[in-house]
Amino acid sequence: MLGNFEFCNPTKIFFGKGAVENLRYELKYYGKNVMLVYGGGSIKKNGIYDKVVEILRDCGKNITEDGGVMPNPTSDKLAEGAKIARENEIDLILAVGGGSVCDYSKAVSVSAYCGEDPWEKYYERMEDVTNPIIPVGCVLTMVGTGSEMNGGAVITNHHKKLKVGHVFGYNVFPRFSVLDPEYTFTLPVYQMKAGCYDIMSHILEQYFSGEDDNTSDYIAEGLMKSLINSSRAAVRNPRDYEARSNIMWTASLALNTLIAMGKTTDWMVHMLGQAVGAYTDATHGMTLAAVSMAYYKKILPCGRARFARFARNVWGVQDSGDEMQTALAGLAEMEKWMKEIGLVMSLKELGVKDDMIEGIADATFILDGGYKVLTRDEVIEILRLSM
Amino acid sequence: MLGNFEFCNPTKIFFGKGAVENLRYELKYYGKNVMLVYGGGSIKKNGIYDKVVEILRDCGKNITEDGGVMPNPTSDKLAEGAKIARENEIDLILAVGGGSVCDYSKAVSVSAYCGEDPWEKYYERMEDVTNPIIPVGCVLTMVGTGSEMNGGAVITNHHKKLKVGHVFGYNVFPRFSVLDPEYTFTLPVYQMKAGCYDIMSHILEQYFSGEDDNTSDYIAEGLMKSLINSSRAAVRNPRDYEARSNIMWTASLALNTLIAMGKTTDWMVHMLGQAVGAYTDATHGMTLAAVSMAYYKKILPCGRARFARFARNVWGVQDSGDEMQTALAGLAEMEKWMKEIGLVMSLKELGVKDDMIEGIADATFILDGGYKVLTRDEVIEILRLSM
Repeated sequence: MLGNFEFCNPTKIFFGKGAVENLRYELKYYGKNVMLVYGGGSIKKNGIYDKVVEILRDCGKNITEDGGVMPNPTSDKLAEGAKIARENEIDLILAVGGGSVCDYSKAVSVSAYCGEDPWEKYYERMEDVTNPIIPVGCVLTMVGTGSEMNGGAVITNHHKKLKVGHVFGYNVFPRFSVLDPEYTFTLPVYQMKAGCYDIMSHILEQYFSGEDDNTSDYIAEGLMKSLINSSRAAVRNPRDYEARSNIMWTASLALNTLIAMGKTTDWMVHMLGQAVGAYTDATHGMTLAAVSMAYYKKILPCGRARFARFARNVWGVQDSGDEMQTALAGLAEMEKWMKEIGLVMSLKELGVKDDMIEGIADATFILDGGYKVLTRDEVIEILRLSM
Repeated sequence: MLGNFEFCNPTKIFFGKGAVENLRYELKYYGKNVMLVYGGGSIKKNGIYDKVVEILRDCGKNITEDGGVMPNPTSDKLAEGAKIARENEIDLILAVGGGSVCDYSKAVSVSAYCGEDPWEKYYERMEDVTNPIIPVGCVLTMVGTGSEMNGGAVITNHHKKLKVGHVFGYNVFPRFSVLDPEYTFTLPVYQMKAGCYDIMSHILEQYFSGEDDNTSDYIAEGLMKSLINSSRAAVRNPRDYEARSNIMWTASLALNTLIAMGKTTDWMVHMLGQAVGAYTDATHGMTLAAVSMAYYKKILPCGRARFARFARNVWGVQDSGDEMQTALAGLAEMEKWMKEIGLVMSLKELGVKDDMIEGIADATFILDGGYKVLTRDEVIEILRLSM
């Protein structure tokens, strides 16, 4: 059954080769002062920075730069960025990068005029946005998070060893996002693989919840099949445009709220992965991959019917007549695929030490939307099995 | 491959039991003068009219009524409605009804200030909208067309025996749509069945085009599986909320542009059905059902790989090794489902006479996005096979 819901996703997507040229038309809807946000500077090597700056100049914009956004943007960086945006009377924040840069830009958007410490307001007290915000636009160079088409913004506080996501409303969604699959070609293959699993995990964590028959789960199955197919092709040839374009669009649809409509969701793998991330700064998608098999094997007995459906509809497993057996065969297929595309399957490889496990467990928020509500002991068990 | 595309769908959806209550908050974004558009008056019998009027009054709106919108809204009615909207300085057009009422409302939206005959501007010359428009909101009581979440508006001109659709831009999309599955319970079962096939046809006509691997087709497969399952349940019990809610949301997603992104599309079944509609005023979904099997059998040899994929992924047909055989088995499954849910499988039953066929063929626009571009003789052949 589809439960009651409200759906709205106003982000305008410009998709495809050369899509950045659409900025020439789109930018006219915004004022003169543009804050150009980016990460470690890879966009200066691959020409994307030059292209965007050329277009901004052609459109007569004043550019205020804010580079150096880290893979896990911090609360300190956020406070700085908010100050820059406010002091330069920014009309549009243009995020050029991956999910971290987009997340950070949305966080700056709501923080510039929040009048206090943004971490405390939005990440400790999780308050709604009541102050004025600054519009955000994105030029995406790395896929996975779906941040280009949603209101989410994850910020890490190193002082408190916390990595927390706040999902903001429609008005904080990027006004537009430029998605050019060719922009992802130069990304290191490790990042591409991690992105693929981040996408898969987004879909799985919305899919593995609820027993009802509802349209959202059928869409999720379609997205997973597309992703599995395209991730295999992209690993064989990272310059396969067909594969990279499907992965890019699937990433946006996986976390633009669509497949969560009218249903409950799980999100425990993200809670586990984010806690690992707060301790190690490991690549987000890989932290999810490392804990997934242990987590899903743990909850499978409580969600057999759905795991068996997953096996049949996503992995083409023949129904054995025994639900448990079918369900396990599906997970085995998933594990095979994860290894095939080269994901990190253990926390050790990500730098987690045995003596971190208790701390990671303490930093793991326990959610109750999935097939099983974990105890702290079970969190520790899953983390140990993932080592 | 996903070709270049632009995607934007700003319609806000309020979905579920009692969703109409959201109007109390939503209406404050619009001015005082509301044009209440509806059809033959069934909403006065089932209480929806009273509910909407109560909310409009509570919100202090002035109501201008425009009822009597016919199943295939006419160019004459459109000219009248545009005059009413203009003369009453309408701030919001509130469509309460099915696809025809939504279509008509969008057509009035762009026509009120177009300064000339709307049929000529928008349906003969297919011009873009340059004049001011009036915002539209919908309260949906009948599903199928997807009109509640897109820019399309089909208008029939009886003088010229033409039924023509114009797809307008994002600004003409409904600003919001209320989707309460219980509002569809009182619909005659014949209309429900026709709606189900209208939805299926929307998906099929976007699916049966192109040979590439792309995400949109995987989503389409998921939507079809959900629809097939839920339509069977709804025919068994029209008050099955789970089934009706899935059908309602699938209808919106089937034609909100999502599954057409980055790919070519066919739309010939709609061209044939609309021509039949211009001659008979038969229920839209049934005109599509009546011509579909003949059409798909005709084009199947030109799109074997896709028809075989359809058989496997949508109908669960085992791959026989022979592509043609697998493809035909898929169509046979579809035909079985169509009969099972009680669709009209022949044009005769819809009142088409042999001597209308030449005229219907002349009124059929031939499109070239599908697996085969039909000749006029082939159109006649398909129509005759559908009798």
